[in-house]
Amino acid sequence: MEFLKKKVIRLLILIACVVGCCSQVEARVRQYKWEVKYELKSPDCYKKLAITINGRSPGPSIVARVGDTIVVHLKNSLITENVAIHWHGIRQIGTPWMDGTEGVTQCPILPADTFVYKFVVDRPGTYLYHAHYGMQREAGLYGSLRVLLKEGESEPFQYDYDRSIILNDWYHTSVQEQSLGLSSIPFVWVGEPDSILIQGRGKFDCNTPGIAAALCNASNPECAPYAMTVVPGKTYRLRIGSLTALSALSFEIEGHNMTVVEADGHYVEPFVVKNLFIYSGETYSVLITADQDPSRNYWASAKIVSRPSNTTNGLALFNYYPNHPRRDPPTAPPAGPRWDDVAPRLAQSNAIRARRGFINPPPQSTDRTIVMLNTQNTVGGLLRWSVNNVSFNMPHTPYLIAYKHNLLNAFEQRQPPDGYDAAAYNISAPPPNPNATISNAAYRLKFNTTVDIILQNANTMNPSNSETHPWHLHGHDFWVLGYGMGKYNGTTGKLNLVDPIMKNTVAVHPFGWTALRFRADNPGVWAFHCHIESHFFMGMGVVFEEGVERVGELPSSIMGCGETKGFYKP
Amino acid sequence: MEFLKKKVIRLLILIACVVGCCSQVEARVRQYKWEVKYELKSPDCYKKLAITINGRSPGPSIVARVGDTIVVHLKNSLITENVAIHWHGIRQIGTPWMDGTEGVTQCPILPADTFVYKFVVDRPGTYLYHAHYGMQREAGLYGSLRVLLKEGESEPFQYDYDRSIILNDWYHTSVQEQSLGLSSIPFVWVGEPDSILIQGRGKFDCNTPGIAAALCNASNPECAPYAMTVVPGKTYRLRIGSLTALSALSFEIEGHNMTVVEADGHYVEPFVVKNLFIYSGETYSVLITADQDPSRNYWASAKIVSRPSNTTNGLALFNYYPNHPRRDPPTAPPAGPRWDDVAPRLAQSNAIRARRGFINPPPQSTDRTIVMLNTQNTVGGLLRWSVNNVSFNMPHTPYLIAYKHNLLNAFEQRQPPDGYDAAAYNISAPPPNPNATISNAAYRLKFNTTVDIILQNANTMNPSNSETHPWHLHGHDFWVLGYGMGKYNGTTGKLNLVDPIMKNTVAVHPFGWTALRFRADNPGVWAFHCHIESHFFMGMGVVFEEGVERVGELPSSIMGCGETKGFYKP
Repeated sequence: MEFLKKKVIRLLILIACVVGCCSQVEARVRQYKWEVKYELKSPDCYKKLAITINGRSPGPSIVARVGDTIVVHLKNSLITENVAIHWHGIRQIGTPWMDGTEGVTQCPILPADTFVYKFVVDRPGTYLYHAHYGMQREAGLYGSLRVLLKEGESEPFQYDYDRSIILNDWYHTSVQEQSLGLSSIPFVWVGEPDSILIQGRGKFDCNTPGIAAALCNASNPECAPYAMTVVPGKTYRLRIGSLTALSALSFEIEGHNMTVVEADGHYVEPFVVKNLFIYSGETYSVLITADQDPSRNYWASAKIVSRPSNTTNGLALFNYYPNHPRRDPPTAPPAGPRWDDVAPRLAQSNAIRARRGFINPPPQSTDRTIVMLNTQNTVGGLLRWSVNNVSFNMPHTPYLIAYKHNLLNAFEQRQPPDGYDAAAYNISAPPPNPNATISNAAYRLKFNTTVDIILQNANTMNPSNSETHPWHLHGHDFWVLGYGMGKYNGTTGKLNLVDPIMKNTVAVHPFGWTALRFRADNPGVWAFHCHIESHFFMGMGVVFEEGVERVGELPSSIMGCGETKGFYKP
Repeated sequence: MEFLKKKVIRLLILIACVVGCCSQVEARVRQYKWEVKYELKSPDCYKKLAITINGRSPGPSIVARVGDTIVVHLKNSLITENVAIHWHGIRQIGTPWMDGTEGVTQCPILPADTFVYKFVVDRPGTYLYHAHYGMQREAGLYGSLRVLLKEGESEPFQYDYDRSIILNDWYHTSVQEQSLGLSSIPFVWVGEPDSILIQGRGKFDCNTPGIAAALCNASNPECAPYAMTVVPGKTYRLRIGSLTALSALSFEIEGHNMTVVEADGHYVEPFVVKNLFIYSGETYSVLITADQDPSRNYWASAKIVSRPSNTTNGLALFNYYPNHPRRDPPTAPPAGPRWDDVAPRLAQSNAIRARRGFINPPPQSTDRTIVMLNTQNTVGGLLRWSVNNVSFNMPHTPYLIAYKHNLLNAFEQRQPPDGYDAAAYNISAPPPNPNATISNAAYRLKFNTTVDIILQNANTMNPSNSETHPWHLHGHDFWVLGYGMGKYNGTTGKLNLVDPIMKNTVAVHPFGWTALRFRADNPGVWAFHCHIESHFFMGMGVVFEEGVERVGELPSSIMGCGETKGFYKP
């Protein structure tokens, strides 16, 4: 009897233990089954082929908690096309082969293949995912990835509800035709987008001359504007990501201020804006309180800035419950800021600092500084973009595998230059000699060193023209040490070493410079490139290798192309 | 001195020998460098993306002599799409891995990869090449392959000049959108083609309502009609191949008879026709003498038969030198035969016999008869085509590699049925139970046996409707033993075992049957399928394995997909 009692007690203890463990904040494995295929979609009322996930574009949102493991079983159901998906903002610490960058970290996923992406989301924040192969992102293959705090933990700001939207621009011309034009002589530019999408919905004018009636239907429910329904008096955290192919945007909600609190997964020292400038590859969280006249709806608007575009502003509805979500506001949509006014954009960039109490201080000095002159160039008659006169092209064999397996013929071994002749180069005029070199050489960074990158903008091939380039770094966040206009003069006095924000994507403004610092502490090979789809396609990117000798055994699933065609099996 | 003399004599003999050998009719190795990429093309005046070879569609013609080795270095410069090219009519004896059939004999060729096709052309005749992956053929990736007799040998018929044309139909809708529609619920049919091309040139009416002016230019030189210039009094061998996606065609040259002398590489007992019926995948040589009024030009015309189509007839110019090749004939183009008159098509099929003196007699009996009922079906709501109620789909791992390497999980191992319940099935009505099974099972043929195939046509899903299907066999020619209307009754009395033509592609006429015989003597795995692009895509095909144990070591270049992802390297 006593014996039985003891047994029961032991059993109860065991049960308590198990229950206790389970009720603990425990990391989950989140499984997703995705099928990638073409579908006819009318996100802006005009019907075109889009690459979808489970029939949707934007694809399904991933919502997870810090520490969770994301497992995406990606079935490629395109008939003759390959695919690869990048998890934008996830550093892939310990899993550099899961970064999803075709040519850098993996071979493309063949039709009928299922590739399993598996990685841990180790930080809270607002992230994105999208195709990273050719220009497929632009065909509609993108979505959002939201990482919440662990249960029981709380953000350093208050809100009632959490919402996500993605801003995008949209072209009716196919990606195949665009990429052909970009790599043709004479060059055929992609032009301004046909529309701006807010959470996958826009409005192209079906009465535009030359548009076949069968292809455009203004009353298609697919292009009904996105409505964000709010309860009067409540505060909303709105997570905004941009995955535009080309456009820099200004986003605003008529009559409502926005308090910026997060950028690319990092807390921002709060500041209030009427309109938010956002560049492709960036994410922000803003807080919005529904504190205006609740008897009506308000416009949310996304306008192209930094380029003279005739594209109609993207519109959505900020819908005060219980007004009908399709009810147009009584007022005209906001006109938005002037497209060519750089000052407020630069001001916003400078305003973004790490939140007090959450400052991750940068190393106070650097081990290596790479100055990257951004120029438009020609190579053998082709129009290209270059860094220090080197225009990037993707090698045939993914770098990660080539480095790890010592396939030294897979790409050019001589590193690209760490700078340019700053004294001699006039950034305010078109390049006197626009010839550049095409190369797939990579930068090798010493592991665990501190690296500074100075992105130096310049005049394009056209007089008095310089563009905004949002640069995105894979596998890391960098500290944004500062921005400036004109030529970076090498003095570090004006750099912010106190409370710089960390980001994964940052703009270099027209004729300006941006200074970044990061730690080369994530073993792997990582792309760093302009997030404008056509610019990267035209060579505006570089690749960093760091600590590849510390990378574990590569999964064979990433092999199968270039020099790795045929690897690892009998 | 004597010694030196001997040496000189020996040397002279050696030189004579070498020179002698070289002046002999010697097989050549013909090297081609091809780059596959998208280009904007206007073959019928309407601009669309086409897949081209070295910028051309149709691609470059290959002209070789019997015994030559063809080496094509195929660079895939599509950005995200794979490719594979089939050498249509070449049996690939000893090189079954060079057949170019994605999923059957090789993995697809990845972007940036160069695949080397290398094979011997062992017989004279008129052949074709085209993409054999998804529906890429229809995107413009095709051309002609002409094999001439060895130097000094002569054909059993006379002509002054040798010319080649390819007939094709052309769609403005992309292959991506077509294949999406075909695999959607509800089903979206590709419809009738927008135009018929003769040697890559057609004429779409740019004034068709709803056509954007920017996309259609009637005076684009790319769509100027093809002109075949002839010298009065001379006789021309015109090699005609059809690579239509869908259409059965009737080809004629106004006022000129044609003498059929070759079919699919085999000499035909000559017969004269006013118009030639030709089905996708077939080739013919006809002799035409320029014996009409030489003061004018004449129309060459290709009209769709077997389907009620509104597509304008394809037109070219039969240009009598020295008339201007752009000068329209004074007469209206020929109207062509009635689309729905099966009798003359059946009559032409029956008229095609092996040429006396060149008869390759068929085995007088068969070891196995496979009756193949051709039906339209549904599988889970999808519209499909089936053989004996089995609708084919391509496996993930090419059969040739799977069989050779015993990868038995790569596809369904149970063979499809050798027949159907002929007594119970009414071929004159839609299937009472249209449900079919999707499978990638293959037929295994005993090596060196004789196999009969009875293609039995039937009513489609629509009442009183049956279509023409051109069936193409890879790796072999078959003897065409006969055609008939209605249900094949199993008696062999009416089969021609005396002088049947050998072909690689043959039509089964609406509500009719076609009987074939071939020797399973070519070790490898071979597709046999309806050559209509959409029909094969929808499952209308089978696969034969024969003597795979005799196949030599497979080149690793064909590996890299499915179960063979990762093969053969360290």
